[in-house]
Amino acid sequence: MTLWAGRLTETDAKVRLFCDSFPFDRRLYAADIQGSIAYARALERAGVLSRKERVAIQRGLERILVEFKLGQFVVAPGDEDIHTAVERRLTELVGEEVAGKLHTGRSRNDQVATDLRLWLLSELPGIEAGLVGLEQALVGKAEGHLGLLMPGYTHLRQAQPLLFSHWLLSHFWRLERDRARLGDLKGRAAVLPLGAGAIGGNPWLSDREDLARELGFERAAENSLDAVSDRDFVAELLFFAALCGVHLSQLAEDLILFSSPEFGFLKLDERFLTGSSLMPQKANPDPLELVRGRAGRLIGELCGFLSTLKGLPSGYNRDLQEDKEPLFLAVGTLKGALPLLSGLVEALEPEPRRMREALEEGALATELADYLVGKGVPFRAAHRAAAGAVKRALELGVGLSALPLEEYRRIHPAFGEDLYGWLDFERAVGRRASPGGTAPQRVRQQIELAKKTLKEVEDGNLS
Amino acid sequence: MTLWAGRLTETDAKVRLFCDSFPFDRRLYAADIQGSIAYARALERAGVLSRKERVAIQRGLERILVEFKLGQFVVAPGDEDIHTAVERRLTELVGEEVAGKLHTGRSRNDQVATDLRLWLLSELPGIEAGLVGLEQALVGKAEGHLGLLMPGYTHLRQAQPLLFSHWLLSHFWRLERDRARLGDLKGRAAVLPLGAGAIGGNPWLSDREDLARELGFERAAENSLDAVSDRDFVAELLFFAALCGVHLSQLAEDLILFSSPEFGFLKLDERFLTGSSLMPQKANPDPLELVRGRAGRLIGELCGFLSTLKGLPSGYNRDLQEDKEPLFLAVGTLKGALPLLSGLVEALEPEPRRMREALEEGALATELADYLVGKGVPFRAAHRAAAGAVKRALELGVGLSALPLEEYRRIHPAFGEDLYGWLDFERAVGRRASPGGTAPQRVRQQIELAKKTLKEVEDGNLS
Amino acid sequence: MTLWAGRLTETDAKVRLFCDSFPFDRRLYAADIQGSIAYARALERAGVLSRKERVAIQRGLERILVEFKLGQFVVAPGDEDIHTAVERRLTELVGEEVAGKLHTGRSRNDQVATDLRLWLLSELPGIEAGLVGLEQALVGKAEGHLGLLMPGYTHLRQAQPLLFSHWLLSHFWRLERDRARLGDLKGRAAVLPLGAGAIGGNPWLSDREDLARELGFERAAENSLDAVSDRDFVAELLFFAALCGVHLSQLAEDLILFSSPEFGFLKLDERFLTGSSLMPQKANPDPLELVRGRAGRLIGELCGFLSTLKGLPSGYNRDLQEDKEPLFLAVGTLKGALPLLSGLVEALEPEPRRMREALEEGALATELADYLVGKGVPFRAAHRAAAGAVKRALELGVGLSALPLEEYRRIHPAFGEDLYGWLDFERAVGRRASPGGTAPQRVRQQIELAKKTLKEVEDGNLS
Amino acid sequence: MTLWAGRLTETDAKVRLFCDSFPFDRRLYAADIQGSIAYARALERAGVLSRKERVAIQRGLERILVEFKLGQFVVAPGDEDIHTAVERRLTELVGEEVAGKLHTGRSRNDQVATDLRLWLLSELPGIEAGLVGLEQALVGKAEGHLGLLMPGYTHLRQAQPLLFSHWLLSHFWRLERDRARLGDLKGRAAVLPLGAGAIGGNPWLSDREDLARELGFERAAENSLDAVSDRDFVAELLFFAALCGVHLSQLAEDLILFSSPEFGFLKLDERFLTGSSLMPQKANPDPLELVRGRAGRLIGELCGFLSTLKGLPSGYNRDLQEDKEPLFLAVGTLKGALPLLSGLVEALEPEPRRMREALEEGALATELADYLVGKGVPFRAAHRAAAGAVKRALELGVGLSALPLEEYRRIHPAFGEDLYGWLDFERAVGRRASPGGTAPQRVRQQIELAKKTLKEVEDGNLS
Repeated sequence: MTLWAGRLTETDAKVRLFCDSFPFDRRLYAADIQGSIAYARALERAGVLSRKERVAIQRGLERILVEFKLGQFVVAPGDEDIHTAVERRLTELVGEEVAGKLHTGRSRNDQVATDLRLWLLSELPGIEAGLVGLEQALVGKAEGHLGLLMPGYTHLRQAQPLLFSHWLLSHFWRLERDRARLGDLKGRAAVLPLGAGAIGGNPWLSDREDLARELGFERAAENSLDAVSDRDFVAELLFFAALCGVHLSQLAEDLILFSSPEFGFLKLDERFLTGSSLMPQKANPDPLELVRGRAGRLIGELCGFLSTLKGLPSGYNRDLQEDKEPLFLAVGTLKGALPLLSGLVEALEPEPRRMREALEEGALATELADYLVGKGVPFRAAHRAAAGAVKRALELGVGLSALPLEEYRRIHPAFGEDLYGWLDFERAVGRRASPGGTAPQRVRQQIELAKKTLKEVEDGNLS
Repeated sequence: MTLWAGRLTETDAKVRLFCDSFPFDRRLYAADIQGSIAYARALERAGVLSRKERVAIQRGLERILVEFKLGQFVVAPGDEDIHTAVERRLTELVGEEVAGKLHTGRSRNDQVATDLRLWLLSELPGIEAGLVGLEQALVGKAEGHLGLLMPGYTHLRQAQPLLFSHWLLSHFWRLERDRARLGDLKGRAAVLPLGAGAIGGNPWLSDREDLARELGFERAAENSLDAVSDRDFVAELLFFAALCGVHLSQLAEDLILFSSPEFGFLKLDERFLTGSSLMPQKANPDPLELVRGRAGRLIGELCGFLSTLKGLPSGYNRDLQEDKEPLFLAVGTLKGALPLLSGLVEALEPEPRRMREALEEGALATELADYLVGKGVPFRAAHRAAAGAVKRALELGVGLSALPLEEYRRIHPAFGEDLYGWLDFERAVGRRASPGGTAPQRVRQQIELAKKTLKEVEDGNLS
Repeated sequence: MTLWAGRLTETDAKVRLFCDSFPFDRRLYAADIQGSIAYARALERAGVLSRKERVAIQRGLERILVEFKLGQFVVAPGDEDIHTAVERRLTELVGEEVAGKLHTGRSRNDQVATDLRLWLLSELPGIEAGLVGLEQALVGKAEGHLGLLMPGYTHLRQAQPLLFSHWLLSHFWRLERDRARLGDLKGRAAVLPLGAGAIGGNPWLSDREDLARELGFERAAENSLDAVSDRDFVAELLFFAALCGVHLSQLAEDLILFSSPEFGFLKLDERFLTGSSLMPQKANPDPLELVRGRAGRLIGELCGFLSTLKGLPSGYNRDLQEDKEPLFLAVGTLKGALPLLSGLVEALEPEPRRMREALEEGALATELADYLVGKGVPFRAAHRAAAGAVKRALELGVGLSALPLEEYRRIHPAFGEDLYGWLDFERAVGRRASPGGTAPQRVRQQIELAKKTLKEVEDGNLS
Repeated sequence: MTLWAGRLTETDAKVRLFCDSFPFDRRLYAADIQGSIAYARALERAGVLSRKERVAIQRGLERILVEFKLGQFVVAPGDEDIHTAVERRLTELVGEEVAGKLHTGRSRNDQVATDLRLWLLSELPGIEAGLVGLEQALVGKAEGHLGLLMPGYTHLRQAQPLLFSHWLLSHFWRLERDRARLGDLKGRAAVLPLGAGAIGGNPWLSDREDLARELGFERAAENSLDAVSDRDFVAELLFFAALCGVHLSQLAEDLILFSSPEFGFLKLDERFLTGSSLMPQKANPDPLELVRGRAGRLIGELCGFLSTLKGLPSGYNRDLQEDKEPLFLAVGTLKGALPLLSGLVEALEPEPRRMREALEEGALATELADYLVGKGVPFRAAHRAAAGAVKRALELGVGLSALPLEEYRRIHPAFGEDLYGWLDFERAVGRRASPGGTAPQRVRQQIELAKKTLKEVEDGNLS
């Protein structure tokens, strides 16, 4: 028996199989029960339920919660979704005379929107903890290896030497932006739909702010018609997850590349490697590849859900049921990937010797140009001269530091003996001392700022 | 114990949870076992297995197949994917001395690609049957109501009268294109990766065409490196599904609109309607809304998977594991939606009276223009004159057939008494008699062509 | 001649055609020049440029700005992008001896990121004004028609009567969320990359906060490596645009449906309708259809750009050039669609008679259930009874108010004569008086809140 | 003046700016004119136009074609799209008395669909030529370097040695599938909409197959309602382009990686490299990065267009105008990228010494396992033994060929002196001699097959 029996004949099995959401929305059970208990209290305040009825309903719901938690909830054939299942079971437990009053003024339209928001709000702290965990791992690693040099890349070609810590921190700041976005969307998720009814509002409640507070929402939705169809919070979470997934996939790409034997800058802990069924020598970074691959899934879920929303007319439409699986997948992916990456980064070992050996003198060509700038040569001319030196060194098959002074002079007369002092990787790194640059003191500042930020998060969560 | 134990320490639980695919790839069990039996035969032909060993392996595999079918397969902690699970169980059944030989020359890379193709090939007939079923429903309905008029729309405004059957058939031809695409992709899916090994090929087999034939493939893949990473067949299926999903969502949109009380052209059978938990009067077309909404999911899966593929380097990368869930979702969605829509269309009842009443005389304005063209007026001038008549009729608040002749004449002198004969919906429909037009004889031709096409499909499947 | 001539031979025409961005990034000219002037000042402060040189550069750049504005800028063959074009022209104007110093310490990597952010920041007020304009139109219309009833829909079937103003305001709150997201992303866009150099930072500047302030940024980027590749602000704008586009497409869908003759609730002003080249009677809502259709484009741009970002390794990669056209398209679409919709909504005329006639008594079935609840019947039983009444009325072919009392009583004994008083659309609307409901006093509150919000925006912009 | 003036007042500038498509659809001019000339002939055959009128129209249209080609076409304020522009100009040239007849029975709905298909059909040979050109470059390079060994990768870790030619050919087969898809979609694009009118068909033509033939279509569309809204051919082209773009991005990724100094396997010609505005030493593979990045755009266009199509009701809706820019972008991207990559591949130089030096002995571990298989050890045990050898060699810091026999024996007693003969890269490659494997004779077969295929294409195009 469904909630809406009465007017319609029963749908057939094929239709049920296509439409029922219980197989995936059952995970909303705690949110559904929490929402119903609060709603029962609101109905009591409104005089729709007596105190005794409310208590009976609450006890029944609490028992159902336990049944779900213990895996003892028994599904009945008509349980098309979590709401129906809970209401059916409540009716068994406390009788329809009482249970039948719980839905007064409430529609599945405002109920499901409330449940999904409650569920998401309960998941956000775990996602933020995952972000913070990975951030801590990055900052910890950066602090532990301050001073270590590695080649910095653009276009996957060596550009300039960098501090290893600077590279690690570049990933930290991406996650900081993700964390900020998470904070922003939380405020918009914490708006209560309950009390919107089907579309027009609730005839029994005179207050909804108390309901909102009780359920941990910031406020009640301002417009009942909007409230039942507003899935911006889902879209926004999916976007947050997709962009965060992109950041994680970029980190994964760096880690895969830099830990390849050809680069050899990083050693991944074996716990994060898997072997091959055929090739005995293999130690593959499968978890990182899955992080990278799943970012594609996250992009797809976002895009698919926006497609589903586009062009829907006003009010609740069943298309909106397609909000759940994408949301569950996005949350689950991040909750899996973030701790995994934290562990992987913590266990990461740089290979200082390989990094140093890999540094190409060509990555110091900007130093030569800057050297000439110091001698009063306009940068554009200095750039050309340095490029000429690089070219000549390539022709002669030597490095920049082995190119004789007369060769330099032939290219530009302002070159002097002291140029060789500039061809030094530490010096090159140290010179990039503008705020945000890779010079050690600036990176130390970054670390301090990062630690301060994380400390504030921690303190905020404690308070 | 994993297939690649030996060189690496075991991964931890967090990593396993993130990486394992058994929860979703277990549905490949039949394909995996089928592929292994064929591979065992190939190894026997190659002399790697004795006949006795091959028979033992085959019997073991067949037993595992039964265990899966009966739901009796017992998962072990190390079963990271379906391939590992089957090999582990086979080892238990026939001992490693024999089972350990089955993987000779084979890698999970060529194995998983083979399994997934086998699985898809086994699903394609069901999808095609679903398409054909819906096509038959549309054609059957079109044939059963030939002659019935309804308003035809552009921009959701009445454009010209149409035969109801013509509208039904417009959806048929969309599905015909889907069916053609399905046929095209089948040929590209039926290319065998097995024998490609990890990337370089197989050292033991001298023939792969026999393997291909045995497994129902059209041919063996030409390049082993390409073979292990080629997922074009997945992308192509996802595109087929997304575009087919778009067509179904367009059909659903038409059905939702035309069955709304405001249009009232169609009556949906109650088996395809659901009610409301709050509003007792409701009879909602939820299945159609879900068809429309899930089309968004299908678009997302396509887009996400292409994102996952983009920019991958050569050879197998674990990112490719993300091919399975999208493929399963796409196939499952179509296999659910197509029969549901067939049933719904079969049970559809047009409301001839409402269709007729809804026809607006404005939709005959093109007739007026054509009337003038018949009198030698250039179409562009005739169009202006007809527009003038429409405007004048609106001003006077009458229909075109009630606008007096003198009004028409004031607009254009070529109008004569016989114009009123042109203001007839049947005549308007009958005049559109170019091939493909809505005139009854042309629609009858369409139906004949459609039936012939479906007959050929049926005959083809029987032969 | 390109900026990097010297070491490499020139690329051929085919490559240039594929790679050059000048055809689309030329629109960044003002941002590029603004950024360069500020950078010249920073170089003066750092002692790299003399005051005289800086003034010469600034004057040259200002002249180039005028040339662009007047359409007099002459493109040279080597102008591969806006940065090269401006530098080339500056060299012509002030000589390389001076112009050649401007690029000291700067890379196109930090320059282009700065330009794009500057451009976007300059566009945001226009987008916000567009949002506010449409919000004002919605609120104004809602205020002007307070009290007017229309059918409210779920599943495109009548659900409950609503105030027309409540429906209008449901679209207002969607836009409010868009406006909040716009505000959030602005803070993340206003972070200055300039001074990050290629990846490692700038050797000449000791301060970047002054640069940031001068250019209107909130702060300088914390990490140079992150700064040159951070395109989160583009992704975030594209998401904002896609979700806003979804909202506009939903508004468009409502407007197209409700203004169709079959619904007939709204009259669109003819300025927003277009005709047909063939059918003289047509008045099509093309602008609304384009708003709806372009939402698809916006979704695609978001998804495509995330795909482009996914899996990129550290540092600047040229793939990032694909940020511009999507950003330009998204901004341009919103800047076109928002004022268009404002004008359309302002000119919208409701058709009160059609709305009233369209109201179905079935939409009062919830009242019957609530009536019984008032008599002490549990809601679930009341719902069944009301559904029974609806069914009986359908069988008898009458409305709920024409169903005789004995029929009601046969369904549930608690029905009494006073039930007929509940079958009243105004009463049904008035009863939904919970906060956020459609009752007139609540809608009036919504309007007050909306107006207060808009007033604050206006005041904020003035201050 | 627009084509539909008469009934409606003129739209305002803001609306025009948002709706007009002339800025981008003007590139359809040749198709529009070609279609109109053919339609004029059809109208002559139908008796609607006299021979003299048809000749006048045709001459006028031919003159307009020349004006467009010479860049001399003067746009008028009312030219909202290419169809209006051409009709307006034709009216100027031959007078409305004649020009006004051309649109008889035709709607912009069937006209624009015809134009777009004609345009696409005219572009397909260029795309196919681009594909074939790149295929030829790959095959030519593979043939020219047959025998050269390189490391083969999975998970970006060395897996097994491969022939360089085998790697090149793996990209060939991907493009072959793209070419097959292109052929498939061509048949579905070559279906003529003209004669479908607005939605209902054409009252004047009794034949459309002659029109179809004359315009190079394979047949006329079977259903007029479907014909005006069918954009499957656009979606299918966009999918083809997106998947082809994915393949090109994968090729680009390989080329970027393998030409990086850290890998060093390939040397890219300087014509395909660009420099840095700041760093004088840089030689960046920008064109390859753009190929990779633009694949993201192509994915986005596909996904966006499917979103636009989803849920549209029957008949033409203006949303469909959003088909053009994505189609133009997709075609333009492929026509730019394919020849560029052909040139780049042709000019590619492998670095045999670097490839050889890079080969790791670990990539021979499968040989050790196979060696044991040859001695009768089941593969799974052999795999474990080989993994043990790899581990031991790593511990001792030596290669597999330097691991003493006693160490091997300690791991597995079946190891004998002859194992060292198996640790040979050429032998490993040569053993993978199953069809499709990397053994030289198999790769030679691949090359022959590839050349035969390309020859057939060439012959087919000549015939």
